This record gives sequence, C-alpha cells and structure tokens, in this order.
Amino acid sequence: MTDDRTLLAVPLTAEAFAPFGDVLEAAGDPTKLINEGACGRWHDLAMLDLSDGRAGISIFRADIRPLPYRFSLVERHPAGSQAFIPMELVPFLVIVAPDESGVPGSPHAFVTEPGQAINLHRGTWHGVLTPIAGSGLFAVVDRIGGGTNLEEWRYDAPFTVVLN
Amino acid sequence: MTDDRTLLAVPLTAEAFAPFGDVLEAAGDPTKLINEGACGRWHDLAMLDLSDGRAGISIFRADIRPLPYRFSLVERHPAGSQAFIPMELVPFLVIVAPDESGVPGSPHAFVTEPGQAINLHRGTWHGVLTPIAGSGLFAVVDRIGGGTNLEEWRYDAPFTVVLN
Repeated sequence: MTDDRTLLAVPLTAEAFAPFGDVLEAAGDPTKLINEGACGRWHDLAMLDLSDGRAGISIFRADIRPLPYRFSLVERHPAGSQAFIPMELVPFLVIVAPDESGVPGSPHAFVTEPGQAINLHRGTWHGVLTPIAGSGLFAVVDRIGGGTNLEEWRYDAPFTVVLN
Repeated sequence: MTDDRTLLAVPLTAEAFAPFGDVLEAAGDPTKLINEGACGRWHDLAMLDLSDGRAGISIFRADIRPLPYRFSLVERHPAGSQAFIPMELVPFLVIVAPDESGVPGSPHAFVTEPGQAINLHRGTWHGVLTPIAGSGLFAVVDRIGGGTNLEEWRYDAPFTVVLN
C-alpha cells in the first residue's frame, strides 16, 4: 500500500531505468569471450558524458540506511554522468526523478539485484548513495574537473521508500 | 619456499604496486565527507590514460582459478590503462611484469585484500584476470577506441603462483 509520499522500491531493470541512466550487469550472453574462453566481457555498458572534464575513479564508503528510508533531498550533476559500482554482492536503493523545467518531479525508487551497478546520465536528479546492506563500499566513475557540478533540491515534505 | 619459477603472491600495497599501477581502496581518512557526513569519498585514485580513446565501463565475469595457479601468458594494452573493480568482497590475484626492451621481465604476483581494486597503467604487462574466490564478477574501466590494443607474450616455461 503506497500513498503519494510512500515509494515502493521496484526491481531495477534496464528498461525501467532507461530515462535516468544505464544498468551495468552481466545480463544475457557476453559481448565476447576473452582470455581463451575463461572470461566474458559485457562491453561498454555506460554512457559516460563528462563535458569538459575527464573520467576518474573514486571510492565511496556510505552509511547503511535502515528501511523504511526517508528522504527529502535530491541532487544532480549538470556537468557529468556518475556511475556507482557496488564492491559487494548486496542490493542498494536507487532514487531518481525526472526533470520538470529545472526542478525534480515525483521521485522513483528502485532496488538493485546483487551484481548490478548503475550509471546516472549527466544531469539526472538522484538521491544520495543509499546502501541497505553490507559495508557500503562503491567504486564511482565520474567527472574530474573544475567548476560547480552539484545542484541540490529539497522536496517540501519527505518521501518514504519501502521494500516489498 | 620458492624457486625462480614459483611466485609467492604477496599482499597488494600501493607502494609495491606503484611501478605497475594504482591500488584503489578506502585507505586512511577519506579525501572528503559528502551527503551530510554519511559518505566518505576517496577521490580520483586512478591514473587513467586512454590515449586517443575514451573511457568506458564494461562488466567481466571470469572463471575462478584454483591455487596453485600456473600461467605462461601475459599481455598488455599499449593504448590504454585498465582498471579492475571486484564486485564482491573477495581477494583476487594480480600478476604483473616490468617491461624490458619490449618484452616482459620476471613476473610479480600480488593478492588483494577484499575491497581493493586496481588500475593497471597504460602498457603494463599483466596476467589475465584471476579471481580465486566468489563469482568472478568485475567492473572494468578501460579504453574504448579503434585499432589494436593487445600484445601477448608467452614465457618459455610456466610460472606457478602460491599463497602463503
């Protein structure tokens, strides 16, 4: 049961997530086999868009969030995409929102399967990193460069994310 | 006990690995705290060098290798760096070799701690991806671009990697 301030986190799929970003996962057959057949490569899954910056790899360690998860803050990076790669086979929450004339519309909540990573397209409104299990360790591929690359928005009332 | 064809895999440290690449890990204090203090960021840890290409993110799933691990093949990518980010908190082997006038010298073997990722510098001789536990799932950040970007070398006799 959800009302308009309660979001049921739905399983993350490439199709449902397409307006916001890419799902990075070993789905279906690999693009090719390498290393004499010992390794599958699912090739070039993320649309990186770093404008005037360059790609960098950072490590994030985020607090584990209890469920149900309440939030009112979302943010976006107007100058670059941002990929979150969990370094542990555990699920995490992904909160995103469409842009409506420069402000975020109603948010959507997804929950990953272990082994899924995401790449948020440049400028996508999203919640902060929200692991719900494990150690909270992620590798992040995002824009390294100058200037301001963060916009924040606070909804006028909080949303609550629940799992099935 | 090791002879010159037996390599004892030593713990991966940034210092020992520096001639070959970067260790990506949440070591020491974070570069900064973000998300109202709920997340540490260890910033921009990898020297990405993609020459005339661009950065891409792929997923690899590699066979788990039994120990002791025998190999004779190494390879390098002359046009770009290559980062391997394990998506599970398990160790993997890292085999690298210095370049000696265009061919690999004697190899070195490292074993990671869970939570460590690596970035091989452009042109570094290395063994194929060798997980030793878990599901073999990695995110890989490397060069997307045209032309040949693979050189292989087979030592005239195999090496054997052992753990302590």
